Amino acid sequence: MKILKQTVEKITEGDAKTRAAARKRLEELTMPHWALGRLMDLAEDLAAMTGSLSPPVKRKTIVTMAGDHGVAAAGVSAYPQEVTPQMVRNIVAGGAGINALARQAGADVVVVDMGVAADLSDLAAAGKLYSKRIAAGTKNMATGRAMSREEAIAAVEAGMEIALMLAPSVDVFGTGEMGIGNTTPASAIVAAFSGCAATDVTGRGTGVGDAQLEHKIRVIEKSLAVNQPDKNDGLDVLSKIGGFEIGGIAGLILGAASLQRPVVVDGFISTAGALIAHALAPLSAQYMIAAHCSAEKGHRVALEVLGKKPLLELDLRLGEGTGAALAMNFVDAAVHVLTEVSTFAEAKVSQAKP
Amino acid sequence: MKILKQTVEKITEGDAKTRAAARKRLEELTMPHWALGRLMDLAEDLAAMTGSLSPPVKRKTIVTMAGDHGVAAAGVSAYPQEVTPQMVRNIVAGGAGINALARQAGADVVVVDMGVAADLSDLAAAGKLYSKRIAAGTKNMATGRAMSREEAIAAVEAGMEIALMLAPSVDVFGTGEMGIGNTTPASAIVAAFSGCAATDVTGRGTGVGDAQLEHKIRVIEKSLAVNQPDKNDGLDVLSKIGGFEIGGIAGLILGAASLQRPVVVDGFISTAGALIAHALAPLSAQYMIAAHCSAEKGHRVALEVLGKKPLLELDLRLGEGTGAALAMNFVDAAVHVLTEVSTFAEAKVSQAKP
Repeated sequence: MKILKQTVEKITEGDAKTRAAARKRLEELTMPHWALGRLMDLAEDLAAMTGSLSPPVKRKTIVTMAGDHGVAAAGVSAYPQEVTPQMVRNIVAGGAGINALARQAGADVVVVDMGVAADLSDLAAAGKLYSKRIAAGTKNMATGRAMSREEAIAAVEAGMEIALMLAPSVDVFGTGEMGIGNTTPASAIVAAFSGCAATDVTGRGTGVGDAQLEHKIRVIEKSLAVNQPDKNDGLDVLSKIGGFEIGGIAGLILGAASLQRPVVVDGFISTAGALIAHALAPLSAQYMIAAHCSAEKGHRVALEVLGKKPLLELDLRLGEGTGAALAMNFVDAAVHVLTEVSTFAEAKVSQAKP
Repeated sequence: MKILKQTVEKITEGDAKTRAAARKRLEELTMPHWALGRLMDLAEDLAAMTGSLSPPVKRKTIVTMAGDHGVAAAGVSAYPQEVTPQMVRNIVAGGAGINALARQAGADVVVVDMGVAADLSDLAAAGKLYSKRIAAGTKNMATGRAMSREEAIAAVEAGMEIALMLAPSVDVFGTGEMGIGNTTPASAIVAAFSGCAATDVTGRGTGVGDAQLEHKIRVIEKSLAVNQPDKNDGLDVLSKIGGFEIGGIAGLILGAASLQRPVVVDGFISTAGALIAHALAPLSAQYMIAAHCSAEKGHRVALEVLGKKPLLELDLRLGEGTGAALAMNFVDAAVHVLTEVSTFAEAKVSQAKP
């Protein structure tokens, strides 16, 4: 609990003075007022996060957290649980969607075993992933809490430790995850924080049919009824209806925020992790960049709770960090605009007529 | 007219066989079906355009076409006409929005003087822009045609010549423009092709106030009434209510399509150019990638006429090619997905349960 407490205490508001200076420069650039729209909003946010008019964003790392879910036994996913370790191996080998998109964005991919229900010790021994295993998957949240409160704390602190460990070589973090069944806890978390009914925040995940979707909604309703999570207590929500990788994501976000580093939040499951982070430290939202709004139904609701507008809407529903990788191009672009475009005075261009 | 005719005749349907092969591979990648959504649609389109399962997209060039508009004298813009040559010089010097965003995307910027109402011969002599001047700005379309039919043909053919000249060193083209007043002809063109009223497709351009917006709409209505453009004749529309840079963009798109090269269409004015290209050769739309939907009111209508879905919506309204530069990141990303992600069989990952 010590790391968690210390990290949360370090999270402060963004730098208002640098934000104002960035806005002033952006308003003087050789273009109609704020003509690059959301990109200029992002440039302003990055200046506030980093306290710099030339925000460092070159070194990018996407942290893909993997974990398994007891609730998968309830038949909520289109894929068998063995796919979690198989996909971890695929990511480590460089063959997954996140690898392709991270390469495009110039980002590194770091994989963390937060609690996969399979032996990945060979990969850890070979230095190909970080092992922060809490347990071999969570328990089935439909019949009781997913993990103990102590495990929830350990998961969040593991994410923080990853952020602090990587910090010397990372300017911008991105979140990502892999875990068969994890749209189910994510939907439950969004329901808990938003107050929405399960049916309004539950989607098809990896692609379940109509009957299985109905079943998935019932499982989420049962999990909420059995556990009665307290939305004013992020650790209560995480421990009752969360997942180890979701806790790790929350910790990574809080760690990044404590370091005044931007963190690009990927898709639906990552946004559920962001909700936990937000519950533990509301100011952490100031360091989050919402990459996209996915095809998953509850994602928009979750982003609204966080007060975040997504950069992209491309019907993505893969996770792994793929949306975060795509959005990192815009982080770069925003900094290019802030630092490279001339002002009217510099370029001797006439201003708008009065 | 010979170049125009020959170029249009060379434009063919995308390669259906390669499209099908790309789709097959994309459906076998280690992810839920089509989980990267619009990025996978784009990958499929790129395969069809280029006839390759590894579409070449490395060498990117944004062509920024500049031109002035007689209708600017009618007081339709917030900026004085002298800003056109000033911004051309700013772009050539590397200080404009397009320069910053092209650098981020790894794209070159090529500037073409299609008819700026100022002397830019020093830049042409120094090899810093291509001079394809048709005249020193168009005539005021509110009182008669903007240019002769011969000038319209010359403008389109100039754009084609630029595409053909650059072709040996360009895989992906992007469009862009600079021209004070050019949202006015662009709105008129969208009204002509869509059948919408001027008021439904006219926005604030560089940022005019309410009274000036009303005036701008009246000017567009008058231009349409005076000229009666025939929407079945792209050259008639261009010559009566177009602009030299808009004709150049149409030519660039047609040139790219004739070479089976993808062309990323930037914002509102570029999309007006795309409508001219589409009128001259409907199949050219198969080589267009719609970068974004801008804050400019008529843009969505124009994209609907073309049957194109934009990749981005970031409240951009700058032009120059800035949206095209941003979207080029996705062109790269789509190819990374198509060529680098493993299939289920390759990675030995279990498929969805039956």
